[in-house]
Amino acid sequence: MIERIAILGTGLLGTSVGLALRDSGFRGSIVGWNRSPEQGRLALKLGAVDSLAADATEAARASQVTVLAVPIYATLDFMEKLAGVLGPEHMVTDVGSTKRVISEAAARLYNTSERAAFLPGHPMAGKERGGAALADANLFRGAVWLFTDDPKAKRSPQSAELVKEWREWVVAMGAKTLDLDPVRHDELVAWVSHLPQFTATALSALLEEEVGGAPELKDVGGRALREMTRLGASPYSMWRDIAHTNTEAVERALLALEQRLAFLRENLRTPELRNQFKQANRFRQE
Amino acid sequence: MIERIAILGTGLLGTSVGLALRDSGFRGSIVGWNRSPEQGRLALKLGAVDSLAADATEAARASQVTVLAVPIYATLDFMEKLAGVLGPEHMVTDVGSTKRVISEAAARLYNTSERAAFLPGHPMAGKERGGAALADANLFRGAVWLFTDDPKAKRSPQSAELVKEWREWVVAMGAKTLDLDPVRHDELVAWVSHLPQFTATALSALLEEEVGGAPELKDVGGRALREMTRLGASPYSMWRDIAHTNTEAVERALLALEQRLAFLRENLRTPELRNQFKQANRFRQE
Repeated sequence: MIERIAILGTGLLGTSVGLALRDSGFRGSIVGWNRSPEQGRLALKLGAVDSLAADATEAARASQVTVLAVPIYATLDFMEKLAGVLGPEHMVTDVGSTKRVISEAAARLYNTSERAAFLPGHPMAGKERGGAALADANLFRGAVWLFTDDPKAKRSPQSAELVKEWREWVVAMGAKTLDLDPVRHDELVAWVSHLPQFTATALSALLEEEVGGAPELKDVGGRALREMTRLGASPYSMWRDIAHTNTEAVERALLALEQRLAFLRENLRTPELRNQFKQANRFRQE
Repeated sequence: MIERIAILGTGLLGTSVGLALRDSGFRGSIVGWNRSPEQGRLALKLGAVDSLAADATEAARASQVTVLAVPIYATLDFMEKLAGVLGPEHMVTDVGSTKRVISEAAARLYNTSERAAFLPGHPMAGKERGGAALADANLFRGAVWLFTDDPKAKRSPQSAELVKEWREWVVAMGAKTLDLDPVRHDELVAWVSHLPQFTATALSALLEEEVGGAPELKDVGGRALREMTRLGASPYSMWRDIAHTNTEAVERALLALEQRLAFLRENLRTPELRNQFKQANRFRQE
């Protein structure tokens, strides 16, 4: 039974995991660690963790389950570091937005009978800004929590049991789990998550040049404009690792949108525009 | 003093104008007309109008102020029809989303001392779907209501007074008014309104092809995807006239976004991506 959890990275997602675990009835210990001590202290104050660790590796070794809630390259660094320290009585999971490189590292460093288990995870929840201050016990309620586990992983019975239990806690936090192949995962999120983000960034950056100098003109766009550019507030620091670890799939999605916009542009006065609206309408039908 | 208003077109905007006028204390008569009688009856039932007219021209003649709340080409048809019937004791206004062609028609057909006044208007409020059923007395609260009036129009004192009073009712309905040159208006809304709509349509139509067949995958995108594609539900019927009457400005905006997306795509792994995120962040700063 999971009784000791370490959360490495107490930003928006890590702190929300701690709060959601408590809210779902988890009564064991939760130790937190964060590179910037301030975010750690905030998570402690919010009750997302009940102690802070000075050393992340030590915290992981003393826990059964370690949740890596840091950017993707930091997750890969931790995976390397922890693989040599943890054993078959441990399980590690993550919340990174791309899964191919992480699943490859998991196959290389984890998931044998002598090693810790690694369950690659990706909750489809977040906000356009990060930080513990925005954490929310209900962040995962109704959200999809993706896993890209290796069905052929040969784990110790102990670590396999921890994986099974962690999946149950994810459901208890209110999420719907879905298992995908890691390559398919990265292709899918390129369309439904990364493309919308880069589109909002491109649109916002463009509009900053066109109307940014006149604040009264931003009001003119109203709700539709605010909504289509809200994700423009997302910081580069949250998206750099995604752009670097899912480049080809994001390139394909962006190119397809460029072509689609050009097609609309060339058909503003032809009946083809009606077909594009109809197809868009279908996407929004429940 | 305005005591008799006709609303021609009792869809979302026309019906909301009626409800907002009542809510703001307008105690005169409001007569409604709609091409489809069903929408007219709904507006009557909601209390947005207190009677329905069988003949739109008659309703306009019997009123002091006529609000045209129909698509742009239908607005132009009404402008032609009413110009010969109304006189200097009348004022007409509209709520159309492009203003160049309407302002040109106003200069040709209205705004002399012997003719009715025409005040071209455009409330920046709406929903992704139309219809009286979605009407809302608070639709214009906090919204910008644009006017593209001709400052050199030589109106009769009576119709000039109606224009002044109608502007006061617009403020009473909770809107912030802003006066623009009609060509500048159409360029501006191409950026802040039409570009976001066509982007949402293109993104939704593209995603319908890529993931539309698997409803469980739409859930994966979560709030960000829902938000970026909500406007994809807008029907062609609401946007056809806009595409036709603001083609060049929309073409320019779409082409600029295509180029911006290509620039992001070519810089997913370069430091330039950081600059684009920073510029987008600036747009979202209050």
